[in-house]
Amino acid sequence: MTSKKTPRRTAERILQTAFALFNRYGEPNVSTNMIAATLAISPGNLYYHYPAKETLVNTLFDQYDAALTRLLDACAGVRDLEDAWFCLHSLFELIWQYRFLYRDLNHLLSGNRHIETRLPDLLAHKKTALCGILEQLAATKKEADTSFATALPDAAWRDQAAASMVVVLTWWLSYEYVLDPRHAMEPGHEQTALLRGARHVLTQFAPHLPASGRAHLQAITAAYA
Amino acid sequence: MTSKKTPRRTAERILQTAFALFNRYGEPNVSTNMIAATLAISPGNLYYHYPAKETLVNTLFDQYDAALTRLLDACAGVRDLEDAWFCLHSLFELIWQYRFLYRDLNHLLSGNRHIETRLPDLLAHKKTALCGILEQLAATKKEADTSFATALPDAAWRDQAAASMVVVLTWWLSYEYVLDPRHAMEPGHEQTALLRGARHVLTQFAPHLPASGRAHLQAITAAYA
Repeated sequence: MTSKKTPRRTAERILQTAFALFNRYGEPNVSTNMIAATLAISPGNLYYHYPAKETLVNTLFDQYDAALTRLLDACAGVRDLEDAWFCLHSLFELIWQYRFLYRDLNHLLSGNRHIETRLPDLLAHKKTALCGILEQLAATKKEADTSFATALPDAAWRDQAAASMVVVLTWWLSYEYVLDPRHAMEPGHEQTALLRGARHVLTQFAPHLPASGRAHLQAITAAYA
Repeated sequence: MTSKKTPRRTAERILQTAFALFNRYGEPNVSTNMIAATLAISPGNLYYHYPAKETLVNTLFDQYDAALTRLLDACAGVRDLEDAWFCLHSLFELIWQYRFLYRDLNHLLSGNRHIETRLPDLLAHKKTALCGILEQLAATKKEADTSFATALPDAAWRDQAAASMVVVLTWWLSYEYVLDPRHAMEPGHEQTALLRGARHVLTQFAPHLPASGRAHLQAITAAYA
């Protein structure tokens, strides 16, 4: 069977197999030999397509980078709490999909110049997007405002809130993993973990909303609790 | 010189050297041979005191565990925002001191049964302590309350807020590391990184405070900005 595949298809199969193994066992625990063995191809064949494990990691990272950038740009169009909820849930789904990147993030950072260079931009982009959503939701306030945000300068406060949200968004799955390392990263725990994460980030929007918005937020998060 | 030291002192010197090297280079990048070479002792001498690197890691982890438990118990006595700020800053100092544990947390978790077993309890203890502070600060509200918290059931809301705070508390230094991997973990960046972390967690208390408390919180965090 394998000999009939085109080189293009083989390269794609290698990438998808590496992706699945990285997510399942953690990138540091997966060797190129393990990937070749799983595919029943020779290490030489794998080497022909991807001369180093880092090439595989970087190809996957670039896919993640492109998908995250698209999604964050789309978040700029958020108009209400339902949009914000959908946007956060989509972000968590993407992070889950590429969970191997976050599982051993510092290890990847210390050994991979490409990721080291790109990742700060991605986190900054996340923060800008969350700031934008905060601004947008604050701008739609219509009623008399007794909310918290008025006690602090808006821009500085939003910046701080957005940074904390980025941390929760980025490390929520690590938190789930610490609490239950044998099960948290298994498929089947996916949906509940993502919903818990999205709910915790969305709740942090609350102080920026008028009372009616907070009740609305409570209704949305309660529906998924 | 070395031959004059008592075994007890040698064991302590090994531990402190390992501690410094783990923090400096990351635990996965430090071998027992590197520790022995740094101390100019034989690998056999090191082995006599610590039969495996894991013994060193676990001894340091148990010290951290004990110090964190003492500190979290002390946080139960928090009465006002100044106490809360002091408590958060002390927590960040302790996390900074043992930063190697957080730098490669998932790696440590996947290979170390002792840490895997103890860490969920520590995170749960952090959450309980933060919940307690939230409760305490809410209980001291004296004026007419127009704050956010009233829109949600108090206990459930505090539980969610405390979980997000635990994530920010635990992974803030990872966030700083991603943003600037070549410098964030160096001594000299310590104080600003810790203050930023403490400020971001403290700001999350704001929705639980009356207006006067929020102004007070703003003054405290501004003083350290």
